[in-house]
Amino acid sequence: MGHVTFPVVGMVGGGQLARMTHEAGIPLGIRFKLLSDTPQDSAAQVVSEVVVGDHRDLETLRAFAQGCDVITFDHEHVPTGHLRALEADGIPVRPGPDALVHAQDKGVMRARLGEIGVPCPRHRIVADPADVTRFAEEGDGFPVVLKTVRGGYDGKGVWVVSGEAEAAEPFKAGVPVLAEEKVDFARELAANVVRSPHGQAVAYPVVESIQVGGVCDTVIAPAPGLSGALSAQAQELALTVAKELGVVGHLAVELFETRDGRLLVNELAMRPHNSGHWTQDGAVTSQFANHVRAVLDLPLGDPRPRATWTVMANVLGGDYPDMYAAYLHCMARDPQLKIHMYGKDVKPGRKVGHVNTYGDDLADVRERAAHAAGYLRGTITE
Amino acid sequence: MGHVTFPVVGMVGGGQLARMTHEAGIPLGIRFKLLSDTPQDSAAQVVSEVVVGDHRDLETLRAFAQGCDVITFDHEHVPTGHLRALEADGIPVRPGPDALVHAQDKGVMRARLGEIGVPCPRHRIVADPADVTRFAEEGDGFPVVLKTVRGGYDGKGVWVVSGEAEAAEPFKAGVPVLAEEKVDFARELAANVVRSPHGQAVAYPVVESIQVGGVCDTVIAPAPGLSGALSAQAQELALTVAKELGVVGHLAVELFETRDGRLLVNELAMRPHNSGHWTQDGAVTSQFANHVRAVLDLPLGDPRPRATWTVMANVLGGDYPDMYAAYLHCMARDPQLKIHMYGKDVKPGRKVGHVNTYGDDLADVRERAAHAAGYLRGTITE
Repeated sequence: MGHVTFPVVGMVGGGQLARMTHEAGIPLGIRFKLLSDTPQDSAAQVVSEVVVGDHRDLETLRAFAQGCDVITFDHEHVPTGHLRALEADGIPVRPGPDALVHAQDKGVMRARLGEIGVPCPRHRIVADPADVTRFAEEGDGFPVVLKTVRGGYDGKGVWVVSGEAEAAEPFKAGVPVLAEEKVDFARELAANVVRSPHGQAVAYPVVESIQVGGVCDTVIAPAPGLSGALSAQAQELALTVAKELGVVGHLAVELFETRDGRLLVNELAMRPHNSGHWTQDGAVTSQFANHVRAVLDLPLGDPRPRATWTVMANVLGGDYPDMYAAYLHCMARDPQLKIHMYGKDVKPGRKVGHVNTYGDDLADVRERAAHAAGYLRGTITE
Repeated sequence: MGHVTFPVVGMVGGGQLARMTHEAGIPLGIRFKLLSDTPQDSAAQVVSEVVVGDHRDLETLRAFAQGCDVITFDHEHVPTGHLRALEADGIPVRPGPDALVHAQDKGVMRARLGEIGVPCPRHRIVADPADVTRFAEEGDGFPVVLKTVRGGYDGKGVWVVSGEAEAAEPFKAGVPVLAEEKVDFARELAANVVRSPHGQAVAYPVVESIQVGGVCDTVIAPAPGLSGALSAQAQELALTVAKELGVVGHLAVELFETRDGRLLVNELAMRPHNSGHWTQDGAVTSQFANHVRAVLDLPLGDPRPRATWTVMANVLGGDYPDMYAAYLHCMARDPQLKIHMYGKDVKPGRKVGHVNTYGDDLADVRERAAHAAGYLRGTITE
């Protein structure tokens, strides 16, 4: 007889990414410990060992980290200094603070990507609205994209301004503001890769990401019509970023594909990412399973697709709170539909789940995903 | 804004079936409440809401059932009378006691299958060792299989006896003993079906189950070389049993394929079953997800296979307690390997996990599963 001593992964943040990472860790026998803002958070509903506390408080983090073999994250909001303190305490933090800062601070990210020769939109830190006008005049003029370097997500912290008069708002938070050219892109892509401390890395097929109102609506895997050359370039670019920035775990590189066939980096995320949710049902190894494997320095799983096409559609909160009632119609209509709900209260526009569909006929696969997401939201009623 | 009120499934029993059913319920946003013998049970490690208590105690069951929308099971050991009491309290019990008794009592099962014309091995209840000899003489003689009608699983409660002198042991428990002919089978098959209260049912591909020492070792989906006619017959037989016995949820029908091409029912299980573990990675909808959907009376998911061949191999406890260390070699050797561990202490011969492999080449798929299971157990060291 013997006692099996499997590692404990400490997950900071109780959102849906933590929930789905826990789900992916169960088959591996990995123990999860969760630091959650509230006992009702998405992941807290399904994890056995939950600590309720504030991830911005160093002593809370230190106490939480006791008994964890590694710390990883549902989000990028833990202060860099706190992560360094945990490392100094001897707790492996993956991704580590030197990598994660590039996903926390868009100014640091842009500067570093420039150093390693990764193509980005034209950009610089701007001081005030008049400086925004100068930035516009240095290029093709307005519109200009303004971003606070910290704190933004899902379109928050991002403004598209047509002139100096509109440029005051971003400066009000007292956070440095980054100006970027408004890229005339053909579409948005995402290159998802996972890297282990050993330096092993895997690249998922490059996907197309369709945004509505600044929020991801649909992801198509692989990106339809993407040339082999551009696909390989996107994967290599993401693998380069992961290596040069020392990323451990999942890295999502959001890209613009320009109308003249170039790739420019839009954003980085160092955690499982909405553009990788399709992998739960569409890849041999999901992004969540590979993130767990990476942070534990286990060999990574096969990232290849299991279907010709996989489509993910986000389920946003609508006017009808009872999404469960919608299951009857969705499941009866499409017995192959894969529903992933997050246990969140419905608020209009909030991401409360997603669906995955797959098959050989892209039009059919897209229609099924869009129908289910719309029906769950309440915008489609038949 | 609105509050999402998803149902609560009360799961009685904290074993690996409960663990994997919880895993399958997470994407559906289903809340799980677990009644577990100890806080360390397989499922208790990964479920948020755990009640520790004895499933044989009616008041414990009644208190547990408060707040549950439906009760289902990890095992078949809850007394039938307790289930009737819960139903009288207004709690849906799925499968219900009138169905479940057929999986609890082999005497009841054999009698009922006879009534509905389902082929079984020759059998009858025997009174004592002398009666076993009479049973043998009524057919082709010894050996005879003896089974206590209640309490057996994984080869426990089953004896193969060559003569009257060996027939005393089964009677010592004071439980009725069922005698069955020793079937000269070509191989063992399993037909897995899922049925909802509405009466919707789905049938998984019929699988071959390879037993070693009375314990399931390997499952091959679909059963190699099985004729279309026999496959359809097995599925129809299982669907008939599910309907006639009023099963709700997953039903596994273990079958003997005789050397002369007949099917005989060996055992029934009314819960997710070892012969259906391959569906986690090999079917569009896993047996666990469909069990959840069935007990909630949701439309069932597509049971069709996703790969040409899927093989499941059980991981039994061996001499080396540290199975986690074996992950490195197994994952590096086969990036497509799917490991499912149960969080159980390693004891020699105990089922502590399983692996799934899939692909187009059956020999390769079998080799990969057997290697991984053997390496995790410690019987293969390279």
